[in-house]
Amino acid sequence: MEEIIKMAKDAKAASSIMKTAGTSQKNAALMEIAKALEENKAELISENAKDISFAKEKGLSKALIDRLTLNEERISGMINGISEVISLPDPVGTVVKMWQRPNGLKVGKMRIPLGVIAMVYEARPDATVDAAVLCLKSGNAVILRGGSEAINSNIYLGKLMQGALAKVGLPEKAIQIVPTTEREAILHLLKLEDYIDLIIPRGGEGLIRFVTENARIPVLRHYKGVCHTYVDDKADLKMAEEVCFNAKVQRPGVCNAMETMLVHEKIASAFLPPMLKRFKEAGVEIRGCPKTCEIFPSAKPATEEDWPKEYLDLILSVKVVRDIDEAILHISKYGSNHTETIITEDYQNAWRFLEEVDASVVIVNASTRFNDGNQLGLGAEIGISTSKLHAYGPMGLEELTTTKFIVFGQGQIRS
Amino acid sequence: MEEIIKMAKDAKAASSIMKTAGTSQKNAALMEIAKALEENKAELISENAKDISFAKEKGLSKALIDRLTLNEERISGMINGISEVISLPDPVGTVVKMWQRPNGLKVGKMRIPLGVIAMVYEARPDATVDAAVLCLKSGNAVILRGGSEAINSNIYLGKLMQGALAKVGLPEKAIQIVPTTEREAILHLLKLEDYIDLIIPRGGEGLIRFVTENARIPVLRHYKGVCHTYVDDKADLKMAEEVCFNAKVQRPGVCNAMETMLVHEKIASAFLPPMLKRFKEAGVEIRGCPKTCEIFPSAKPATEEDWPKEYLDLILSVKVVRDIDEAILHISKYGSNHTETIITEDYQNAWRFLEEVDASVVIVNASTRFNDGNQLGLGAEIGISTSKLHAYGPMGLEELTTTKFIVFGQGQIRS
Repeated sequence: MEEIIKMAKDAKAASSIMKTAGTSQKNAALMEIAKALEENKAELISENAKDISFAKEKGLSKALIDRLTLNEERISGMINGISEVISLPDPVGTVVKMWQRPNGLKVGKMRIPLGVIAMVYEARPDATVDAAVLCLKSGNAVILRGGSEAINSNIYLGKLMQGALAKVGLPEKAIQIVPTTEREAILHLLKLEDYIDLIIPRGGEGLIRFVTENARIPVLRHYKGVCHTYVDDKADLKMAEEVCFNAKVQRPGVCNAMETMLVHEKIASAFLPPMLKRFKEAGVEIRGCPKTCEIFPSAKPATEEDWPKEYLDLILSVKVVRDIDEAILHISKYGSNHTETIITEDYQNAWRFLEEVDASVVIVNASTRFNDGNQLGLGAEIGISTSKLHAYGPMGLEELTTTKFIVFGQGQIRS
Repeated sequence: MEEIIKMAKDAKAASSIMKTAGTSQKNAALMEIAKALEENKAELISENAKDISFAKEKGLSKALIDRLTLNEERISGMINGISEVISLPDPVGTVVKMWQRPNGLKVGKMRIPLGVIAMVYEARPDATVDAAVLCLKSGNAVILRGGSEAINSNIYLGKLMQGALAKVGLPEKAIQIVPTTEREAILHLLKLEDYIDLIIPRGGEGLIRFVTENARIPVLRHYKGVCHTYVDDKADLKMAEEVCFNAKVQRPGVCNAMETMLVHEKIASAFLPPMLKRFKEAGVEIRGCPKTCEIFPSAKPATEEDWPKEYLDLILSVKVVRDIDEAILHISKYGSNHTETIITEDYQNAWRFLEEVDASVVIVNASTRFNDGNQLGLGAEIGISTSKLHAYGPMGLEELTTTKFIVFGQGQIRS
């Protein structure tokens, strides 16, 4: 506990220097981080090997070990990611609007860093660097607590990044790694509202609930994605097939992949047979409502548990709906406010879906897979918020800032 | 508990209708509320009389009874407030920006209501109407829990407002008053993260801490204001005197009044004697640092407890500082991130103060009293946030909304 409080205090002190650091100094630090990664590849890979061998002993799944692994290619990916963040505009200091009052006061809103951000996330060392560089560029101090299986990799990465900060004269404590694998450490972090301004939990539903229930600090949740595509009776069925196939199959293990396909009953018997056959051939297991099973008998019957389920796998639930009302109702009942798509050529239905569906990204005629900071044009992202406050949807550099009001007067007083 | 859950569920259901209600329908509801207040003045005043007589029995202070009291004039004020909210633009549905991606996707951010807002506030029946009408206009449902001393007034106001909603075909449950005075009710509200999107606590520090520590729902705190004015050595001393006098005396009982005046040592002996004499004559008690007491012997010595204190009264702490660095340091140590002013004619010092001071509103050469939604040009406000997330500073209609991404495609898929 003592150690966590000290980290948080150090982070707060560092943040008061980071908040006025200039863009070129922050970019210089980013370049030093990239250089340090390049120059210490071998040692990084050997630290990572410790984590991997421990994870294998613990019997972690192949998928988790894959996410944990650092190799030459992944490290190059991290370095490219840093170059990209260097090229993004610095949001800090931007005056987003400015206006004048009748009494002559000039009032503006200026972007400033949030202060200290704590992030609790999966055992993915590449995420450690991604998160650190976004916080650095946006002028924040960050405390990182990755999954315990990545502890050796993360501690080493922290050392490299702190060295880079020191080289350009920025405070080392602007990037800190929680050096323990105890879960207690997270609980302590969540209570330090005097030092930490924001918590971003990322990972399993259990972790996110734990953080939300225990935090005294604002939380931006990167939550599960139960994403739907609704194929309207007025859809271009060829487009619908391509978009649905992409949404499910292109990368099934991520939060913006489609989990449920809703199909208007008028086109169900024309659309479903070729679509579901194509899914089957791609290895997708189909769990259908009774009508779906009637039309496509090799589908398994879906149960009530399927509708709110985030499979993150080659499994798709399929439901035939009476109309757009039933589709919107289904989404409001089972959706997770993440990403929702309608496929339609009908103007009114597109309008209604956009207006009425409550999700961080609502799409007409494109794949759910586009809910991503890069794809939507924000640059790199630190996560996708399904919280409504502060940021809703992908969070880039701007979302790691807030605005303060600035007022220029000439002696105005209130009467 | 059962009752509170039911209220929250009803609010959620109502919010799904409110979110797509058109501006003219919402304005019609606002007009009906104004009409109902006008037509039922007498009964409202008699319900309010019950609260006042109970408050007198309980021995409440004169100031609190004054805030609790409704009379013809206050009711007219409420009605005028409603007209003003009718005239404000509706933020809902506004697309705040829109851009196009290289693959042709058109991406925008559209303002939408937050959903269900719960507000916990002082025993001020006029605040009940202010909060309800701002939430209504911004398309939210609201659950209101005012100070228990106002319970009869609030229940009656709730009835009038629900009647107005029903008249124009909007759901009555969009405005609900917690009908009990038990504090337990607040605790229940704070846990209902599945139904409530935001809690706004307003009032004493104890209440706000209680809410922050117990909430599982995002909280926007309307916290205390320990506001400073720093009089630089390069200040126009005449301007400084007018601005400081206004900041302290014009309305001392509010959160944006000045509580501490910081004065550069070079101008202290020229500035302080006439300034403090003027304060004295206006009935302001001065609590000074040793140097202040030396220059102005009738000042009381300030203690360490004075610097972080929100007096809300005709009391002012005064400190002589070596330079702008000491002023900024003092503010970062004792300030409450509310409102901070510098008085200076020096460009560099104005710049540094604006950049380095962390407060929701930072002002050059004007009174701290301008931290107010109306004064800064936002229209009516529901409070002043000193939380950094989502809104920092006065919160108007826009701050009661969030944005979702909307994406228009023509069949785009990810590769």
